[in-house]
Amino acid sequence: MRVLGVDPGLTRCGLGVVDGLPGRRATMVAVDVIRTPAGSDLGARLLGISDAVEGWMDQVAPDVVAVERVFAQNNVSTVMGTAQAAGVTVLAAARRGIPVVMHTPSEVKAAVTGSGRADKAQVTAMVQRILRLSEAPRPADAADALALAICHLWRDGTAAVLPRGAQGGATAAQQAWVAAIEASKRPGR
Amino acid sequence: MRVLGVDPGLTRCGLGVVDGLPGRRATMVAVDVIRTPAGSDLGARLLGISDAVEGWMDQVAPDVVAVERVFAQNNVSTVMGTAQAAGVTVLAAARRGIPVVMHTPSEVKAAVTGSGRADKAQVTAMVQRILRLSEAPRPADAADALALAICHLWRDGTAAVLPRGAQGGATAAQQAWVAAIEASKRPGR
Repeated sequence: MRVLGVDPGLTRCGLGVVDGLPGRRATMVAVDVIRTPAGSDLGARLLGISDAVEGWMDQVAPDVVAVERVFAQNNVSTVMGTAQAAGVTVLAAARRGIPVVMHTPSEVKAAVTGSGRADKAQVTAMVQRILRLSEAPRPADAADALALAICHLWRDGTAAVLPRGAQGGATAAQQAWVAAIEASKRPGR
Repeated sequence: MRVLGVDPGLTRCGLGVVDGLPGRRATMVAVDVIRTPAGSDLGARLLGISDAVEGWMDQVAPDVVAVERVFAQNNVSTVMGTAQAAGVTVLAAARRGIPVVMHTPSEVKAAVTGSGRADKAQVTAMVQRILRLSEAPRPADAADALALAICHLWRDGTAAVLPRGAQGGATAAQQAWVAAIEASKRPGR
């Protein structure tokens, strides 16, 4: 399965593509950060993001697009632009019939680090380790996009191969993932 | 000048087209409300809105698109969807090279009623009167879309024909509009 992770934003929009299957190692296919100038008008910025996202979708042909779920409670000065960047990404996927899944930041952090409250450095370090990269992905938006893709592979993958009460065949690492993911779903996290 | 006003929203997206020139009567060309079902996934909803908005842009060929400016402080449960609906509208205009202007709700209310704090009934009544409609536009999203278009015509129009200190040639009605618009720009409104 190939997942395109998108960390939406007007100033920096992270894009990361990861291939993987349940129980197999995940592999990075591509990563980049799209930037649009803060001085440009909103239409030009959304067009730049939309064109880039559509180009990636057409070139890498993802099976699914994983987008970070934006909350209105986040940074008020940037949240509207982030929502609009997410909106044009979801639209581009819908036009191509590619399914879109949304993951919250705490789900993503829990999937790659085991804690829904991990900091950016931890997420970047774990993304580098999981994907066996020689260098840490920079900036944080690039690492976040890859983490989103990994999160989706693991959440969907483990759900598919590890039905409730049937975890006997899972490796210790898979069981640790499942525990971290389940922990992230508990209220209060 | 032909203005397409868009009151963005996922559940109801108001579209209204108004023709007008500075100092002339404004005329309604078309009005409608696009609805997408709350149960559908986000991609399908944004695609429905995008297709409708693109169809309108291609059919009515507006000179400018006026979109309501959404604030993160508004209703938290709907604001993200509203921002995304606005985003796909702005994107559709940018793809066609049509300029987009944003007006705040209080600017729109001030333009059509003289008060930035007018209620929905007042806005609807004034839209009906200004456009000489035999019936009030319903629902409120339809009236708001027309009000946005009128707001843009009047704000741009009065600025063009009424430079500062040269209002001697304006009609009493134009002077009243200008006063209302200026009042809406004062801090604290």
